Amino acid sequence: MSSRLPGFSSAWKRFSSTSTFTAKSVPSKTHLHKPIPDEAFPKGYALNGVHCGVKKDPTVLDLAVILSTSPNPTSAAACFTRNTFKAAPVVVSQEVLDKSAGRVRALVINSGCANAVTGKQGTEDAWAMVRATDALLDPKPTGNETLVMSTGVIGQTLPISKIVSGIQASTSLGSGFAAWERAARAFMTTDTFPKLRARTFTLGGKQFHMAGMDKGAGMIHPNMGPPHATLLGCIMTDAAVSHRSLQSALTYAVDRSFNSISVDGDMSTNDTIVVLANGAAYPEAVEIDEHTDQATYEAFRDELTSFAQNLAQLVVRDGEGATKFVTVSVDGAASYEDAHKIASRISTSALVKTALYGEDANWGRVLAATGSIPLSTPLDPTRVSVSFIPTDGGGPLPLLVNGEPENVDEARASEILSAEDLEVRVELGLGNESAKYWTCDFSYVRI
Amino acid sequence: MSSRLPGFSSAWKRFSSTSTFTAKSVPSKTHLHKPIPDEAFPKGYALNGVHCGVKKDPTVLDLAVILSTSPNPTSAAACFTRNTFKAAPVVVSQEVLDKSAGRVRALVINSGCANAVTGKQGTEDAWAMVRATDALLDPKPTGNETLVMSTGVIGQTLPISKIVSGIQASTSLGSGFAAWERAARAFMTTDTFPKLRARTFTLGGKQFHMAGMDKGAGMIHPNMGPPHATLLGCIMTDAAVSHRSLQSALTYAVDRSFNSISVDGDMSTNDTIVVLANGAAYPEAVEIDEHTDQATYEAFRDELTSFAQNLAQLVVRDGEGATKFVTVSVDGAASYEDAHKIASRISTSALVKTALYGEDANWGRVLAATGSIPLSTPLDPTRVSVSFIPTDGGGPLPLLVNGEPENVDEARASEILSAEDLEVRVELGLGNESAKYWTCDFSYVRI
Repeated sequence: MSSRLPGFSSAWKRFSSTSTFTAKSVPSKTHLHKPIPDEAFPKGYALNGVHCGVKKDPTVLDLAVILSTSPNPTSAAACFTRNTFKAAPVVVSQEVLDKSAGRVRALVINSGCANAVTGKQGTEDAWAMVRATDALLDPKPTGNETLVMSTGVIGQTLPISKIVSGIQASTSLGSGFAAWERAARAFMTTDTFPKLRARTFTLGGKQFHMAGMDKGAGMIHPNMGPPHATLLGCIMTDAAVSHRSLQSALTYAVDRSFNSISVDGDMSTNDTIVVLANGAAYPEAVEIDEHTDQATYEAFRDELTSFAQNLAQLVVRDGEGATKFVTVSVDGAASYEDAHKIASRISTSALVKTALYGEDANWGRVLAATGSIPLSTPLDPTRVSVSFIPTDGGGPLPLLVNGEPENVDEARASEILSAEDLEVRVELGLGNESAKYWTCDFSYVRI
Repeated sequence: MSSRLPGFSSAWKRFSSTSTFTAKSVPSKTHLHKPIPDEAFPKGYALNGVHCGVKKDPTVLDLAVILSTSPNPTSAAACFTRNTFKAAPVVVSQEVLDKSAGRVRALVINSGCANAVTGKQGTEDAWAMVRATDALLDPKPTGNETLVMSTGVIGQTLPISKIVSGIQASTSLGSGFAAWERAARAFMTTDTFPKLRARTFTLGGKQFHMAGMDKGAGMIHPNMGPPHATLLGCIMTDAAVSHRSLQSALTYAVDRSFNSISVDGDMSTNDTIVVLANGAAYPEAVEIDEHTDQATYEAFRDELTSFAQNLAQLVVRDGEGATKFVTVSVDGAASYEDAHKIASRISTSALVKTALYGEDANWGRVLAATGSIPLSTPLDPTRVSVSFIPTDGGGPLPLLVNGEPENVDEARASEILSAEDLEVRVELGLGNESAKYWTCDFSYVRI
């Protein structure tokens, strides 16, 4: 018995016939880190990653400094964790962003210690990191122009003198792939590869660049080293964007990227995504603003969103123990918020995630997750459809159509489910709004 | 690095020193099923459990019938799943309860097939079960007086003729332990033992009885047989209680019991908890009602709540792969709802549950979960404390006091964490409201 489709017994038996279980091996993800040509990176940034001593192993990088060297003004925007227990770097970065009215030229990140639940000392240490990095800026800032991020152990104070020394020694900054890669490596905690991407894009016939890095979430194993789940990311572009429009664009992008991934379903004290826009691509840069040129703003916003989705998806792919990358699409919702809520619920359901790991075409679990949250427009069970979308170019495989179970082609379902990438699509039949979420399977095993 | 407390390295190393991992074996739970003396069961109930053929194995029971034989009126109340996709038995039971104004004398349950997402046929089948069971009642009812529950595969129709034949053949009903146990066994799907309990209680100097059974939730393994997560339970008492007060008492009790356990965090299409009160303890029974005798009502409500908690806790203890039984207490909240929300968030956090499995004193994860949901009264991080409460009679072990990490006795923490039962207590410092949740660990293992 199972809530699988009738006739799914053969796929099922592989998982139910014995009480012990041979787990699938988790595929290596290191091929996802690739060299990027120097010219793909945005102009006007200097950066580095070093070992300053937060981590014990001297070969492991733990501190990154990123400076804007653009002659044009640099805008910054950020999205911070909504957790009530905000770590010191979050509180300090928020204050820097507010006081500078979004004019920020630097970013400093350490891994190995989260500087969270560290009281007054923690706040002082975060400010010390800001001031030390401010001092690297040319021209010298009048106020503070550095944002700070930390990831690692909770409840321990930073080895702040080591970090400040490391920042002060960061004078040999680079701007090519090697420098970006060192910065990305300094972000890493349990990540199995540095998550670095760059892209070239065109706005109004002119070429711009965007590069970014992030570090991952999903650490759900008691035997893993660092059991923190912080999501940090930064994106740098050489386009010129006004602060308020950069914030609008980032909020929109983060909602559809970093807020649309599920690895372990928790929200850390340190989660932070930052974007800098320095206008270095063109000396005569005029800042993009949604109120003066809506079309260009939206084009930029969509580039940022798509790029943020790429970075966020790397985190899902590197989810600890993940063997599958699953896109959950919810279509036909009455509002984006409803669609996003359902996509989130499905993506974080342990029952759905274990069914995906088991390669079980279990629309019952998808349906139960779909129906389990209150929405602004109530669902009509007779309008809901569920299908699998393969990544091999084939058409969708309907499992449930308007509330009625389909008689499914078992061989085809097994084929789709055995792939590393697949999409689960839920159609609500209530409107025209959609949302996507990216999740991985739970490689839960029986003991 | 980890978010564990400073000095926790020895406990930690057990889990981090190698990349492969020897999982703890899940302890057997069958000792939790014990014989119960016949006289502990409520008077005026006749019941049985049989094999009718929903399940293949003829030695496995799959159908239970429970009748009230009391000369006094029997009241019924129920709490149903809030999932939008309600299975046919849920819809039909709700209608029976409404139309009978809470006068219901029978209950029929099948396992092996959930009769969910089965369209019109499903509704007809659920009604057929109701009518066949109504026919067993003496005196014959004028309307319908049977509630129906199903659990098992989703999307398949019931073998209804087998079930109706099974009901019709259910004439040799008993009232002692053997009969109750057979009924409890017919509930089981992936449960490793029948979940049956009884108790004697006193109201106004008179003795009454209560007995109940439930079946469990936590099936989170792709290699388990039936991947449904339905929670079914029923409680029968020989006290006399008016329908409306029985419903008030059950709603209160379910909120604090079945709605306060977390095994896999999902809510099925079939979840149902039913209570019957038949007044059979005393021929001259006057119905307890909250509007005529508040004190007696509250005494009954509290008995029901405590009994429902016992039944609900059995489900947590039988959670698939669970090695620990953890009570999460949230105290000092401004409202019960806020306390319940936080307790729920902590109890369903994969990061918290894996830390418990890893016996890691990880207050960072507890704190992150605590801070991750919006509340009606916002938290003040400087007032939050976290402690572990041992089950060996020792005092609480504070981990975080008013937002500041404690210097913890490592040996004592290891002792507390290595026990099968423990309590995690979070004090918010905002008010006088409390809530408790019961959860198990996630025996997630690295592959």
